[in-house]
This record gives sequence, C-alpha cells and structure tokens, in this order.
Amino acid sequence: MSTAALLVIGNEILSGKVRDINSPFLAIELRKLGVDLERILTISDEIDLIANETRAMSEVYDFVFTSGGIGPTHDDLTMDGIARAFGREIELNRSMVDRMERYSDKPLNDAMKKMAMIPVGAEVLDVGGLWFPVVVVENVYIFPGIPELFEKKFHSIRDRFSGVPFILRKLYVRESESDIADILNALLREFPELMLGSYPRINEEHYRVMLTLESRDEGYVDRATETLIKNLPADAIFKVD
Amino acid sequence: MSTAALLVIGNEILSGKVRDINSPFLAIELRKLGVDLERILTISDEIDLIANETRAMSEVYDFVFTSGGIGPTHDDLTMDGIARAFGREIELNRSMVDRMERYSDKPLNDAMKKMAMIPVGAEVLDVGGLWFPVVVVENVYIFPGIPELFEKKFHSIRDRFSGVPFILRKLYVRESESDIADILNALLREFPELMLGSYPRINEEHYRVMLTLESRDEGYVDRATETLIKNLPADAIFKVD
Repeated sequence: MSTAALLVIGNEILSGKVRDINSPFLAIELRKLGVDLERILTISDEIDLIANETRAMSEVYDFVFTSGGIGPTHDDLTMDGIARAFGREIELNRSMVDRMERYSDKPLNDAMKKMAMIPVGAEVLDVGGLWFPVVVVENVYIFPGIPELFEKKFHSIRDRFSGVPFILRKLYVRESESDIADILNALLREFPELMLGSYPRINEEHYRVMLTLESRDEGYVDRATETLIKNLPADAIFKVD
Repeated sequence: MSTAALLVIGNEILSGKVRDINSPFLAIELRKLGVDLERILTISDEIDLIANETRAMSEVYDFVFTSGGIGPTHDDLTMDGIARAFGREIELNRSMVDRMERYSDKPLNDAMKKMAMIPVGAEVLDVGGLWFPVVVVENVYIFPGIPELFEKKFHSIRDRFSGVPFILRKLYVRESESDIADILNALLREFPELMLGSYPRINEEHYRVMLTLESRDEGYVDRATETLIKNLPADAIFKVD
C-alpha cells in the first residue's frame, strides 16, 4: 500500500484570489491508482515553512507532491524551500537551460534562468511537449500551480505511482442519516474492514444520503453491499451505483 | 491583525469522492473581513489526528475553524477529537437536545442524540433558522461539512471575526511573467511592504499574467499601482481592476 501527501504552496489560495483545483484533481487520480492520499496542506510562500513541511511529509509518506511556486518571479520559492528541506543548495541545471533555449525564440533572461535553478542532485523527468520537466528530490515531486500544466505533467508520469485500487459502491438513500445510523453501525460490526462513508445532501430531490462502501477486496465490498441492501427498508434505496 | 487556520476533516475529500468547497468559501470570506488565513489542512476521520492538529492550530492562530465530521454516524468523530485536544470529556448538551426536540416531529433516537454530544464547557452559539448551533471550544469554531450549512452558519456569526481588510488592485498584463520579472523586483525594492502576486494564465485570450497588489494601506497600494503602471510598457496592460 502506498501513501501520499500534497503540499499546496501559495498565498493566492489562502487569500481566496485563486481556487485550488489541483487538490481535487490529484485526490481523484491517486484514488484511481490505489495510492492513499492522507494529507493536503496549503501554506504561504515562505522558504522555511516550505522546507519544514516538505521534510516532515517526506519522512512520513511514500510520495509527496507539491503544487505551485516554481515560476520566474519573486514569490516563487518552492525550489529554495525544498532544497533547504534536504540540506542542499540550488544550482543552474544545464539540461533545463538547453531545453528552454530550444523552445524559446529569444535569449534566456535572468527570470527564465531562475526557473532552471533546482536543488543539487534532483532528478529531472522529461514531459513530452513541455519544456519544463518534473523535478524530483528524494520522494518529492514538484508540480506547477497552473492547473493545465499540473494535470498534463501528472498524467505523463502517473505510471510511477501505483497501489491496489479500491472497489467503490455507492448507495443513494431516501432516509435521513440519523434514521439509518443503527443499520450502518451493525454493518460495520459484520464487516469491520469495510470503508463506509455516509454523506448527507440537502437540496437533492430524490435522496438524502449518499453511502459509499469501499474495500480493496471486490468480493468483500460486494457482500457488504448486499447485506446493507437487505437491511435497509426496501423503499429507502433510490439508486445503487 | 488576526490570524486563522482551517482544519478540514474527511476521508471523502482525500479520496476525491466529495470536492471541498468550504475552503475556498472561507478563504474569500476571511479575506473580506481582514483576517489572515494562514493554513488549510485536510485530514482523515481519526480522533487522535483531529486532536493533535486542533491543539497545534489552536496554540498558533487566533481563530481555528473545523469543517466536517459532526453528523450522527460512525465516521463523525470531530467532537471526540476536539474534546481530546483540550483534555475534556464529551457530554449530552441539554439545550441542544431541547432545540432538536422542538424542530423534530418524532422522538430523538440515539443517532440524533449523538449530535448533541459536545465537549464539556463548550460555548453554544445559536444560528437563526437552524436547530444545530455553532459549537465553540476555546478558539475553535466547529462547522459542518455540508456547504449550505457551513456558509449559513459562518454568515450568522461572521461579526465575531474582524481584522483590517486588504485593499486589492489587479492588473492584467499581456507580457509573459519572465519578461516582467525585473520590473516586479524593482517595484518590491521601492515598496517593500507591498504584497505582490503574479499569476500566469494559459488559455486566456487577452492577457498572460494577473498581477495582484495588496496592502492594508490604501494610499500605499495606490502609489505602488501607479508606479507599476508607469514602469510597464504602455501596451502591456490589458486591464486594471
């Protein structure tokens, strides 16, 4: 089983100026791959904060992803923070400069060169069609904040992240959560390994609660789903997915 | 100046089944109020994790908000976690039971009573039109995960949170980030207290970068904005907000 954490770096998210859509994207993608995303943390653009949080996550999780802070301007401090996390310097990466020069129609200025300053010893993963690679330091994968690039880059290296996917069943129920809570508790006593979620919805016309049943064992989740359907009142179930 | 942190509690966010829209809502609202949101952390439904993170945030920030995990089912562990954070027990709150009984058309079952189990000594803030109040323990404000309720509850008690609001100016620029980086760095040397954000956009027809200039001092941000406009090439500016 593989675990992961995501560090979102950016004042723009905390101040509500930009909406973070990389987190929900990564959550969905890692789930499909069977990697357990256990923590999402959003912090501001400060080198020491980036360093401390990256190091802490790197020690606990198999994979750490960062989002944001790798552009050419003053508030792009992710590379410095991650270098500090592992006690490394940053240096101009020759292969990145070469790549940038091939893609660019004019000489590189200092701001563009700043984007090729990465931690010493980092791994550089080529991404087809983009001049900027994915930079990896230890188990930390450094992604850009721009969602189109985040997604494209993730898809290009997703084969590196694998686990055993969950099998998910969804039941949409017309009863209120408090009226089915006893039935859910009984189900968990019979299927203690089941991951059971109960999510009330208001403003839905046809159901009041979405139940999710998950396990990495398909037979187990199917038996649990059958048991739950049997135990709920027949007219309580709006839909099974 | 007031600071805040948000703890989002829920496996459903980490597994990508439900999208967290409370975080962007709160980020925008706190910004309007002038409260600095400095950290957003999403964790799974585990009592010790909730306890540890709540306690850590409570010590550092003026206000802590939690989202999720206060319903009637097995995976609703927020009240237990927050009680443990402050070394308190949870107990049935009589005034909440009374309120629930007034709103309900049938006797309370155990699952409904579970929702009235809150940490000893908690403050209970009435929210007009909802039977479920906002529960406050020390500086921790406990909100539901359901966005409609989160928003309604926040609006009902927003007067408790106040700071000095930021004045924000936005410039939409046609040049690339790396071509204006030197101008931005010069601006920061002249206006070291300015909060300057630079956000590249791809797939926008009319501009390539959104610049944000912020300060709590309106005269300062206006002088900085004028200086920046003067220093950028005249045809680089698409729009000023």
